[in-house]
Amino acid sequence: MSKQELRIGLIGYNFMGKAHSQAWRNAPLYFEMEAKPILKAVCGRSKDRVSTFAQRWGWEDVETDWRRLIERNDIDVIDVSTPTYLHHDMVIAAAQAGKHIFCEKPFALSSEEAQRMLEAAETAGITHCLNHNYRRCPAVRLARKLIDEKKLGRIFHWRGAYLQSWIVDPNFPLTWQLQAKFAGAGPHYDLNSHSVDLARYLVGEISTVSAMTSRFVTQRPLPAANATAFQGNSESEELGEVTVEDAAFMTVQFENGALGSFEASRFALGRKNYNMFEIYGSEGALRFNLERMNELEYFNGTDPEAAQGFRTILATEPCHEYISNWWPPGHTIGYEHEFTHAVVDFFKAVSSGCPVEPNFRDGVACMKVLEAGLRSANNGSCEAVT
Amino acid sequence: MSKQELRIGLIGYNFMGKAHSQAWRNAPLYFEMEAKPILKAVCGRSKDRVSTFAQRWGWEDVETDWRRLIERNDIDVIDVSTPTYLHHDMVIAAAQAGKHIFCEKPFALSSEEAQRMLEAAETAGITHCLNHNYRRCPAVRLARKLIDEKKLGRIFHWRGAYLQSWIVDPNFPLTWQLQAKFAGAGPHYDLNSHSVDLARYLVGEISTVSAMTSRFVTQRPLPAANATAFQGNSESEELGEVTVEDAAFMTVQFENGALGSFEASRFALGRKNYNMFEIYGSEGALRFNLERMNELEYFNGTDPEAAQGFRTILATEPCHEYISNWWPPGHTIGYEHEFTHAVVDFFKAVSSGCPVEPNFRDGVACMKVLEAGLRSANNGSCEAVT
Amino acid sequence: MSKQELRIGLIGYNFMGKAHSQAWRNAPLYFEMEAKPILKAVCGRSKDRVSTFAQRWGWEDVETDWRRLIERNDIDVIDVSTPTYLHHDMVIAAAQAGKHIFCEKPFALSSEEAQRMLEAAETAGITHCLNHNYRRCPAVRLARKLIDEKKLGRIFHWRGAYLQSWIVDPNFPLTWQLQAKFAGAGPHYDLNSHSVDLARYLVGEISTVSAMTSRFVTQRPLPAANATAFQGNSESEELGEVTVEDAAFMTVQFENGALGSFEASRFALGRKNYNMFEIYGSEGALRFNLERMNELEYFNGTDPEAAQGFRTILATEPCHEYISNWWPPGHTIGYEHEFTHAVVDFFKAVSSGCPVEPNFRDGVACMKVLEAGLRSANNGSCEAVT
Amino acid sequence: MSKQELRIGLIGYNFMGKAHSQAWRNAPLYFEMEAKPILKAVCGRSKDRVSTFAQRWGWEDVETDWRRLIERNDIDVIDVSTPTYLHHDMVIAAAQAGKHIFCEKPFALSSEEAQRMLEAAETAGITHCLNHNYRRCPAVRLARKLIDEKKLGRIFHWRGAYLQSWIVDPNFPLTWQLQAKFAGAGPHYDLNSHSVDLARYLVGEISTVSAMTSRFVTQRPLPAANATAFQGNSESEELGEVTVEDAAFMTVQFENGALGSFEASRFALGRKNYNMFEIYGSEGALRFNLERMNELEYFNGTDPEAAQGFRTILATEPCHEYISNWWPPGHTIGYEHEFTHAVVDFFKAVSSGCPVEPNFRDGVACMKVLEAGLRSANNGSCEAVT
Repeated sequence: MSKQELRIGLIGYNFMGKAHSQAWRNAPLYFEMEAKPILKAVCGRSKDRVSTFAQRWGWEDVETDWRRLIERNDIDVIDVSTPTYLHHDMVIAAAQAGKHIFCEKPFALSSEEAQRMLEAAETAGITHCLNHNYRRCPAVRLARKLIDEKKLGRIFHWRGAYLQSWIVDPNFPLTWQLQAKFAGAGPHYDLNSHSVDLARYLVGEISTVSAMTSRFVTQRPLPAANATAFQGNSESEELGEVTVEDAAFMTVQFENGALGSFEASRFALGRKNYNMFEIYGSEGALRFNLERMNELEYFNGTDPEAAQGFRTILATEPCHEYISNWWPPGHTIGYEHEFTHAVVDFFKAVSSGCPVEPNFRDGVACMKVLEAGLRSANNGSCEAVT
Repeated sequence: MSKQELRIGLIGYNFMGKAHSQAWRNAPLYFEMEAKPILKAVCGRSKDRVSTFAQRWGWEDVETDWRRLIERNDIDVIDVSTPTYLHHDMVIAAAQAGKHIFCEKPFALSSEEAQRMLEAAETAGITHCLNHNYRRCPAVRLARKLIDEKKLGRIFHWRGAYLQSWIVDPNFPLTWQLQAKFAGAGPHYDLNSHSVDLARYLVGEISTVSAMTSRFVTQRPLPAANATAFQGNSESEELGEVTVEDAAFMTVQFENGALGSFEASRFALGRKNYNMFEIYGSEGALRFNLERMNELEYFNGTDPEAAQGFRTILATEPCHEYISNWWPPGHTIGYEHEFTHAVVDFFKAVSSGCPVEPNFRDGVACMKVLEAGLRSANNGSCEAVT
Repeated sequence: MSKQELRIGLIGYNFMGKAHSQAWRNAPLYFEMEAKPILKAVCGRSKDRVSTFAQRWGWEDVETDWRRLIERNDIDVIDVSTPTYLHHDMVIAAAQAGKHIFCEKPFALSSEEAQRMLEAAETAGITHCLNHNYRRCPAVRLARKLIDEKKLGRIFHWRGAYLQSWIVDPNFPLTWQLQAKFAGAGPHYDLNSHSVDLARYLVGEISTVSAMTSRFVTQRPLPAANATAFQGNSESEELGEVTVEDAAFMTVQFENGALGSFEASRFALGRKNYNMFEIYGSEGALRFNLERMNELEYFNGTDPEAAQGFRTILATEPCHEYISNWWPPGHTIGYEHEFTHAVVDFFKAVSSGCPVEPNFRDGVACMKVLEAGLRSANNGSCEAVT
Repeated sequence: MSKQELRIGLIGYNFMGKAHSQAWRNAPLYFEMEAKPILKAVCGRSKDRVSTFAQRWGWEDVETDWRRLIERNDIDVIDVSTPTYLHHDMVIAAAQAGKHIFCEKPFALSSEEAQRMLEAAETAGITHCLNHNYRRCPAVRLARKLIDEKKLGRIFHWRGAYLQSWIVDPNFPLTWQLQAKFAGAGPHYDLNSHSVDLARYLVGEISTVSAMTSRFVTQRPLPAANATAFQGNSESEELGEVTVEDAAFMTVQFENGALGSFEASRFALGRKNYNMFEIYGSEGALRFNLERMNELEYFNGTDPEAAQGFRTILATEPCHEYISNWWPPGHTIGYEHEFTHAVVDFFKAVSSGCPVEPNFRDGVACMKVLEAGLRSANNGSCEAVT
């Protein structure tokens, strides 16, 4: 192996497997990378399906047992793109095998799992990345830059909402995301994990939380064998129990004194992938909405009084992070580009030995906030994040 | 007294006194009213100031003692436009004097006060109206109409926020709104009272709440003698204690199973009078923002799949409530028009003897929700509304 | 007559008569005026109807012959709120009688008429005002202020559109606005007159024009006797000829080198009163849309490169013109407030003897641009404004 | 050659060469294609640069003489991604060599050139595609679908604007786009060509035009040798003459009676790639803005009167064209995806022998409209499209 190459082993070939595959392929076309990603092997339980996937996306080889994939000597990086409940074992095995790890979110089923995963990674000394892709949206990077430049002053509020609607239909089947044993929780893990990651990135650590959750549909048809997450199509008339919440609303105190909110739902009709946040400070304010991911709204409280207002910044200028590698101003990018940015940054970290953010440490911190939220919802009490 | 006239006695001549005065004057110009409002007398502590006000706005007479105003035989209606802490005594006295009452919000300092005020009104058999003016915005009326027509189906979520920024400056003085003894609470009473009223109007009763509050500035300059609420200009160097919260975030369960949120702040830079709500149901969704008060956003989940989206309805058509009395389509109305609508509806109630909504019963219900929020914030626990 | 009063005689009592009446009534309540407007008499052809109107709006007296109204000694100001074809004779008679004149737009049927009206006013030495009310929207005033402060630099483009949809239905009757003998032209006069006035106010004089017009519906039912402009309700089965255009698109060169466009239509479904303009300069850009009349969008090209964007300014701060007389920040105003502002400014002019803008001189200039547009549409040629 | 493969020869390796290369690479990953695109060779004048490009993007071979590329036997498709003035000779040579052609826009310097290119292609019987990529934005496809379904009824208006700002700075150098001999015209060809193509696609043929153009900066620094189109960086102090217009505004009559406008400018500060259109019909209306390319606004005039409004459709549902091949609902796509769609459709046409749209016939039609616009601007007259 040349040091100019890093050989990837991908586990999972559904939605995230596809998003990651394109990232590994596209990254070296648009960005200068110290090492070239080699799509060495992809792993999935169905030999047929994973082979079809591999051929399409250019993976050199396939595996059907993830432990075998991890053991291979010709793999430098393990990319974990599976459902949440599998992350723990895969990450620990990969770390013990000395592989660098690029792991999808939500990180784990619990903070205890998360802690073990972090420890395994640190013990092994490998580079670990938790793929909260929205940190790598240029408009979000701009939000961080403005905050770093003190353009917001003292921050008073975070208002986050991540709203979807893909299970409003009570006949939508009981996919893995709706079962606690596979997903840990519902939108509180799936969506609020993104929001909490963004809030930690932009505002800071959360100290206290109070949450309420709801389950609007308690039983759903069992999924057909070939159902996928977003287009589950049931053939079964049998019903199974929904074991996660359908919506989770949480208010929080940040360590820096800010008061915040997180609202995650899969029952917000009309919202498809509405990952929104607002941040209010003493000098400025920001608003972001993923459905318009190329834009950031910014209110500058130091503008002349008569001319203050939220401005819509189209974050497609060469001065906006990542953008100069893509297209001219005003030529927008899409969802998958964030994944491309993530693998570029991850490879920088692998090459330099410096950590990338967010990493497993962030995964632990995020899980602690989310867990405190679940405790709060169960206990009807305000809970400290510990 | 002719039955064709109702004689008004107004207490208070600041922001709300002005808003109410224009309503009494304008209502009969645009609307057919069974009785004509007569601007009989206005009451304020400063003889000079209240006389100037009376002359400008056409009040026939002035009083400087509100008890005297209430006792007058030539007054049929008492309009209470004073700071919150005065409502209780004024309302009870007015009810006992057999006057109909049009009272500003927030209703009272506590649900106990509110209950007594309601009882006095009911004992007296007078018509009572609590002026949550936003119910009378045509776009809000349209929201209610769509909900009544089952266009939203089963409601899953209420997301309310009422954000302002008038006290972000730490040198803004300690006006009455920032002192618990005068205002009861901060934005939780001032702003969340509006949101809770709208939520009750549109979604239903709230059963459980969990709230967090913050105070970002604990001391402020004492106000100059002639300061007004929104443009306090301190001459004093002395500081006083802020005794209300600066922001209050609350999550709630509705009796019908919906999960909701209320976020009130006076520290949301860039937001001036941003009274926003979103409602998500199984068939449709709504969004309203008072800063664009002529508009309602509506998502119809039964539209053809390829053509679904939030539509921005300009609620200025003759078919929209109140509008045919104003201007042609597309000719927008403003803030004060809601007050005009309120007095029209109030007079209908007085004439017919039927209740108007919201009334003191709503005031009690709203105060109970708000109080449960304060308890929750103090106790760090989820609280039932009782 | 006291110099502290100016006695108004209003001609016309439909849409504009109502809008003007409220202005005369409300202006002294909110603004300090040197003279108080006295609603002396209103004139209309139907004694019954005009009397009802007078009683409602507080006009002391009525006339049914406008020449008699103008001759009255107890009238200082003539307010012309009639259809366009009547303006010429009324204005000239009023000027000759030495009355100050407040005249609705469009000014006249032709620039020749307009010129005579201007000359009569100047000969008489009276104060004359042409009521292009949109100049008095606070957001438009802010646009002018930013331009005056050189915030836009050299102006390259004006893009104006005034779109409505009230006659898309081919059964909408043949009201006076659809007949050349009464209206002069269709939306080119009715709507483009507003846009041209705004363009002259904000950008400068127009030198050359090129226009195209269309008539989509050539015959319409004759209107019922009691039809009003926006809700014509035909009882007749007889058809009459539409003699004005339904839409007029015009491109222009300004004297300062800017390239501009004007697009007026009554066939733009979905647009109710969409009076929109954009102005692009070397340093900044602006966008206004009357359907959100409290807002102005402003792009500041000197902002830091990464943080440039169109900002939405809510023009409801005390520093925005006229606003401190109304409500606190974020409490929006509506359509009719512009008329109130207009009469306030008109009275200032009457009292001071200084001209108010826009006046009849602007009316002449505007008519010359519009007429050149009609010539261009007829001749298929680019036409100079002369 | 297997019929399952089509071998591409690309000419040009700048902005468009990059956009096309990614399309050829990505198309088979996301879409089922009957033939696989083989990136056989890329041609550019600089051996070094084109080789670097080829290596990065996976082109097997390079050429420095485009005639040699076209002559190669191992090439099936010629992709013309060069400046406009080169299109004519390349297209004719490629057609004569029997290659299928995928050609960038604007099509040609004149309609005469365009006509010859079309004839060469038809004589050769090859498949020809003109890459007006915006037709392949899912939101634009939805616009077409709604129109095809008669949801707009009779169309009254097209309002198109394509606004950019990349040459507002007078020191931006004299790149090829600013010279008539290379570009034919300025934004009228570059931008209005897109708008005219969309208008023909959505509304129909244009019969008459009237245009005005402006040149705001007449001389500019000569470009440095290595300047690219959007980031020209001059090292030279020498000035050269700008020989194209900076802005072109055009009004048109469509054959179906609609009245339309086209406004193209490179001097619209604040607009980056603002390709906007509105279409108004008797039953509905549409609005699109490329800077929010995943959205289409739609007004349905048959909605209940109280609930009509422009709805913002997020065109990321599986039912929206092309989308099911990408990501789940709400996961937006970007600029380059349109190019991917284009090559997919082009290959379908090559395989089936059926024409793809837009093709060279559309190129001729578009050029005729644009040329009529230039004639009109020169002559100051309305011009027929012939």
